[in-house]
Amino acid sequence: MTKFIEVEVKDLRVPTSDTLHGSDPFHKKPNYSCVLTSIKNDDGLAGLSVNFTAGAGNDWLMYGVRDLSKLIIGRKLEQFIEDPVSFYLMLIDHHQLRWLADGVARMAIGSILNAIWDLWAKTEQKPLWKLLVDLPPERIVKSIDWRYLKDALTPEEALDRLKNSQGKKLEQEKSVVQKGVKAYSTAGWLGLTDQKILQTINEVKSDGLDCFKIKVGKGLDFDLERMAFMRDAVGVDALLMTDANQIWGVKEAINYMKQLSDFGPHWIEEPTARDDVFGYKQISEALQPYGIGVAGGEQAPSPVIFKQLLMQKAIQFCQIDATRLAGVQDVLAVILMAEKFNIPVCPHGGGIGLCNMIVHYSLWDQICVSGPYRGQLVEYLNFLQDGVFLNPVTIEKGAYKTPTAVGWGLEMNEDFIHDHTYPTGDVWQGREASGSITFVA
Amino acid sequence: MTKFIEVEVKDLRVPTSDTLHGSDPFHKKPNYSCVLTSIKNDDGLAGLSVNFTAGAGNDWLMYGVRDLSKLIIGRKLEQFIEDPVSFYLMLIDHHQLRWLADGVARMAIGSILNAIWDLWAKTEQKPLWKLLVDLPPERIVKSIDWRYLKDALTPEEALDRLKNSQGKKLEQEKSVVQKGVKAYSTAGWLGLTDQKILQTINEVKSDGLDCFKIKVGKGLDFDLERMAFMRDAVGVDALLMTDANQIWGVKEAINYMKQLSDFGPHWIEEPTARDDVFGYKQISEALQPYGIGVAGGEQAPSPVIFKQLLMQKAIQFCQIDATRLAGVQDVLAVILMAEKFNIPVCPHGGGIGLCNMIVHYSLWDQICVSGPYRGQLVEYLNFLQDGVFLNPVTIEKGAYKTPTAVGWGLEMNEDFIHDHTYPTGDVWQGREASGSITFVA
Repeated sequence: MTKFIEVEVKDLRVPTSDTLHGSDPFHKKPNYSCVLTSIKNDDGLAGLSVNFTAGAGNDWLMYGVRDLSKLIIGRKLEQFIEDPVSFYLMLIDHHQLRWLADGVARMAIGSILNAIWDLWAKTEQKPLWKLLVDLPPERIVKSIDWRYLKDALTPEEALDRLKNSQGKKLEQEKSVVQKGVKAYSTAGWLGLTDQKILQTINEVKSDGLDCFKIKVGKGLDFDLERMAFMRDAVGVDALLMTDANQIWGVKEAINYMKQLSDFGPHWIEEPTARDDVFGYKQISEALQPYGIGVAGGEQAPSPVIFKQLLMQKAIQFCQIDATRLAGVQDVLAVILMAEKFNIPVCPHGGGIGLCNMIVHYSLWDQICVSGPYRGQLVEYLNFLQDGVFLNPVTIEKGAYKTPTAVGWGLEMNEDFIHDHTYPTGDVWQGREASGSITFVA
Repeated sequence: MTKFIEVEVKDLRVPTSDTLHGSDPFHKKPNYSCVLTSIKNDDGLAGLSVNFTAGAGNDWLMYGVRDLSKLIIGRKLEQFIEDPVSFYLMLIDHHQLRWLADGVARMAIGSILNAIWDLWAKTEQKPLWKLLVDLPPERIVKSIDWRYLKDALTPEEALDRLKNSQGKKLEQEKSVVQKGVKAYSTAGWLGLTDQKILQTINEVKSDGLDCFKIKVGKGLDFDLERMAFMRDAVGVDALLMTDANQIWGVKEAINYMKQLSDFGPHWIEEPTARDDVFGYKQISEALQPYGIGVAGGEQAPSPVIFKQLLMQKAIQFCQIDATRLAGVQDVLAVILMAEKFNIPVCPHGGGIGLCNMIVHYSLWDQICVSGPYRGQLVEYLNFLQDGVFLNPVTIEKGAYKTPTAVGWGLEMNEDFIHDHTYPTGDVWQGREASGSITFVA
């Protein structure tokens, strides 16, 4: 038996606001940032997780993770492995913290749980996707909190569906691992020039990528022009996705997107508020005749919101995020529900470390749950990899190369950590204003 | 012109876990706690707000409020009064913090905004309800962020509806202020003995209260017995409400409540997850033949969730909370939507300071929006008033006496603050375990 002896938390921020990478209608000058959580085990291993934020507020999350760490120090990894749902419930149902609900609290719990999953995978010497793929269906189902999800999917039905796909698992594992999961690239950040966007497109095209995403919502004239430019740059056959980051109301979203429909957008992502299930449903129904699907989920605050989005067919593309929910177990539940309602899982990969984590979920999904490519697209960003992660994600023939490092593969370059620690790191000297909450664009 | 010069934040916790006041199926040993925020103006006035939590996690919220205070120091009260929605947007749309979404972040923003509303009311020498009642409909409507709400209610329609009720306003103000808003009492906390519950019922009955609420969800046998006891104690004609604090899944809630239906529960509150709009709708439809309504909202994390609950008729009683949303403006929006969909507003009043705040909302609702009593019930708790607040809420003939103190009337007894400050106050010496996150029931 081994036990957790220390939790270390680091506040890392990258001044992406310098270049406007990551910018959208709301996040005008984000600094891609993360809380790096490391849980040390007394056998010498350390489990890592990253939890993305847009800069200010990284410290709110760090505060939460530090506080939660008091609940887990001294507990045993084997206790988690034996009964992951009890561990989850200890945190999510904490009799005083529960009042804080989702947002920071659920994200902080996710930081802790994801780091423990990393430890588990490391003790088995497997990448996280492989740990999940090798877990028997019974143990996957037993790890999930089904209390609020049973009207969509019961644990019994989930078990049946997982068992039914077991027959094809070996074959699917071989083919998916070899081909990798299909990726798309977000190229059209709102604050970038056309030239800079074109440069990104050409860079990722050379890696075989043929699906691209653009931010919209700045204004119709601007967007019509940029959509024309993008369609021209990517070609008539490429999938071109759009993302509004919640800028519109329900009716505005419908009217706006009808006017962009000539450029053939594959989906509109987050057309309105993150939790507006019935709003998404209305938008889906109105845009269906135009061939535009609705994507959402990167800010869906709970598995219950995902449940409703899926049951109501309010989304056509399910965008799990790696760090907003309460860790692996919440995300597995969402992937299982998405399969039942036949909605492809297209994870959100913006932000530092997210691409590195989502690839594991997509591998599990495409090997054990929904099967090889039939519309699942995994977001890819071609920055903040080399020099940041010791095992950066890489793209080949338009797909993520399957990770081979153990755990999530989130080990970071020591120099990167040193330089980007906020506010003491070298990168932050003389830049205080853009890092702190006092800076408003 | 006056400006905000200092924000002071206090962490106050009451060891209610000693007596199990406030206990329910999830919050087994809550310590009723609050973040007390005080915004000092350079004219010598201070605006106060309290934001309730269940103990651990109070410090998470305090961390957020302190950070947000950096955004408002030096700004002018007149800027807020002139254009409250711009001030709201500055906080809610902060280009980096927005990623944190609801939960702690929205609650912290609410702490700041509510304290500024308190300051505003104090400069006009009015209780908060009177400030709201005297604001012209145009200014109420202009204070609200309508972006995500327009499919339920447009600002134009809200203005029309408010203007239409202006004719009766003077008369309604006179009668509502004199009678007060009708209250109900939560007597049956889960952890209390029958004897203790009976004592509370008799205490509040002597104040004229004739509606009572009981916690359910511990187990069917236990609840059947307690419901029988409660019905006997309150009498056949009294309204008897039930509250499950989200303990069930959708189908469980329906089956469980059917079995309690003989005792005539007026409503079941939070039968399932706080954000399960579609689940609430299913439960509402299934229990409608049994005469049991669904109540919800105390943990509804955003105005968008309220919008959906109301539009979908998923709730029959709309339970605004005074401190979960982003302050007065969010709550006014919910009250206006509830009126349009003809759902009575029955605010949540558990927890320290909540009763003191919700009475202002109910007065505005019943004077300017939905009109005098037609099913609106305002929760009342008969503890944590005397000795805590300088102007405690009081009950007369079953109704809240209309507050006369300026602002929210949240000024606290200095000794109470001193003794209950966590972790340094006298009350917390030797009780460390029950105050901190390390304590798990």
